[in-house]
Amino acid sequence: MLEQASDIALSKAALSKDKINFYVGGDLINQIISSTFAARTMGAPYLGVFGACSTSMESLALAALLVSTGAARYAIAGTSSHNCTAEKQFRYPTEYGSQKPPTAQYTVTGAGAAVVAAEGDGPRITSATIGRIMDLGLKDPFDMGSAMAPAAVDTIQAHLQETGRDPGYYDMIVTGDLASVGHPIAADLLKRHGVPIAETQFNDCGLLVFDLAKQAVQAGGSGCACSATVAYGHLLKRIAKGGAEAAARRGDGRAALAAVLSAGREHSLHRACRIHRTLIDPKEDFRCNICGHFWSAGRSASSASCCSTLPS
Amino acid sequence: MLEQASDIALSKAALSKDKINFYVGGDLINQIISSTFAARTMGAPYLGVFGACSTSMESLALAALLVSTGAARYAIAGTSSHNCTAEKQFRYPTEYGSQKPPTAQYTVTGAGAAVVAAEGDGPRITSATIGRIMDLGLKDPFDMGSAMAPAAVDTIQAHLQETGRDPGYYDMIVTGDLASVGHPIAADLLKRHGVPIAETQFNDCGLLVFDLAKQAVQAGGSGCACSATVAYGHLLKRIAKGGAEAAARRGDGRAALAAVLSAGREHSLHRACRIHRTLIDPKEDFRCNICGHFWSAGRSASSASCCSTLPS
Repeated sequence: MLEQASDIALSKAALSKDKINFYVGGDLINQIISSTFAARTMGAPYLGVFGACSTSMESLALAALLVSTGAARYAIAGTSSHNCTAEKQFRYPTEYGSQKPPTAQYTVTGAGAAVVAAEGDGPRITSATIGRIMDLGLKDPFDMGSAMAPAAVDTIQAHLQETGRDPGYYDMIVTGDLASVGHPIAADLLKRHGVPIAETQFNDCGLLVFDLAKQAVQAGGSGCACSATVAYGHLLKRIAKGGAEAAARRGDGRAALAAVLSAGREHSLHRACRIHRTLIDPKEDFRCNICGHFWSAGRSASSASCCSTLPS
Repeated sequence: MLEQASDIALSKAALSKDKINFYVGGDLINQIISSTFAARTMGAPYLGVFGACSTSMESLALAALLVSTGAARYAIAGTSSHNCTAEKQFRYPTEYGSQKPPTAQYTVTGAGAAVVAAEGDGPRITSATIGRIMDLGLKDPFDMGSAMAPAAVDTIQAHLQETGRDPGYYDMIVTGDLASVGHPIAADLLKRHGVPIAETQFNDCGLLVFDLAKQAVQAGGSGCACSATVAYGHLLKRIAKGGAEAAARRGDGRAALAAVLSAGREHSLHRACRIHRTLIDPKEDFRCNICGHFWSAGRSASSASCCSTLPS
């Protein structure tokens, strides 16, 4: 799956494998072996990462760092997870048929990959706020949402404070996999902390990835692939659609939707909690450090067109 | 162990925990939970990484990248492994008493941490060459050295080619954990490829960490902590000693020994092989991007003195 996702990302960016300077990958299997196999096929220098459900945004942030420093011209951030391997490695083999409470979440089977380039016409990554481990002592491995919510809130608040922004600056703020238990806790905590979260669409990949009314996924989605598939699939499409609509209004080709992607996961059996977040935001200016071209935004997250094809 | 190592590194750098902008960590336990616990104690934003035995140098390279871009003023790279947990998770529980062939390696129980700072009087990280996955089809999980040697050779050759250097530029080139089986294979491959490896001291952390004649470690050391303990302990001390000796000769306080640290590990059961390498090298010039001070070398790997105390 991860190899397929990487191939599709390369195809969309009209790039061949030999152009990729770094493969930054991680997944939910022991020793992140899925990513290692994908990196073997890719043949690029490989940086393995692990942030559990935050892996996709951690790898995206590091790929953006590599590109923004000029260490790479093209980097792939790739992430995958599989429901059955997660059950086998971290919970019970599915053959046991063990029952789960409604607070449990369903690990997403999927993969997502993004090509991060120094130039292009895709949305741009302008900043990333890396989260801290928050451990409030929750011990129920079948209630990750409650354990992760405080970390998500801490990272969102840190980001807003560091950038001097209000939630309303973003069209959406999306967490990784708080799902139906953790999401309202996070929303409530933000309100209690005086953050005007109602200014924006506050949502969660764990809620977006499944139809909770029709699918037997308990509280919602989780796992490395949860934020990867929702962010690189659904949300990037919405950004592109918003961009096209805004372009039609404004008469140029730039994306207008901005999204905050936040991905978190609790190491449930160990009671540690982590959160990462990366921004995709076309609103800020920068000068390309490869061609010197001045753009009205940060780094491209998905495309590889020549700088000269972009509006200045 | 990792918390202790991080505390010792902070103490040597005369820093408190709240000064640390990022904790970059990884280890050999599933979901790198040791690193997550250490990051929880540290309270800093956390980037989890996994490169098996190359984890220490991967985390050091990423910490250096964070510092060199100005994203961090201080970052900790921390790594640990434990023999018994590695046996339990990846081989056989030690209670089984299973026998091993002489090609097997002994996972090092230990931890190492480095404070990477934008200024200081320690050795400087001037470049890092990230390796590719090399899979030559070796399938014996008790012979990691043979599987890893081609990846080590590939990365060393890539580094020398990219920097236009000969092995003689370095006082030492040290791989991570090829041990007594993989090390001579790597040396032989380098010779066959026309690399004058005899110009330098070519050694291996897996050979340096144990006394193979006296300790029952089969072919030598391996695991995340192998390169971490040897690099952050033994090799940094040798660099400091070489620096002090050179300083006595030259009349200043700068280190003169340069070392290439290379760490590799094969995912033995999956036949994938990876390698990373980071340089600690005081020979090149740079300008500090925090204070603007011009130095005759790269980034500090271990200290936090004010720029103004350094020779210009």
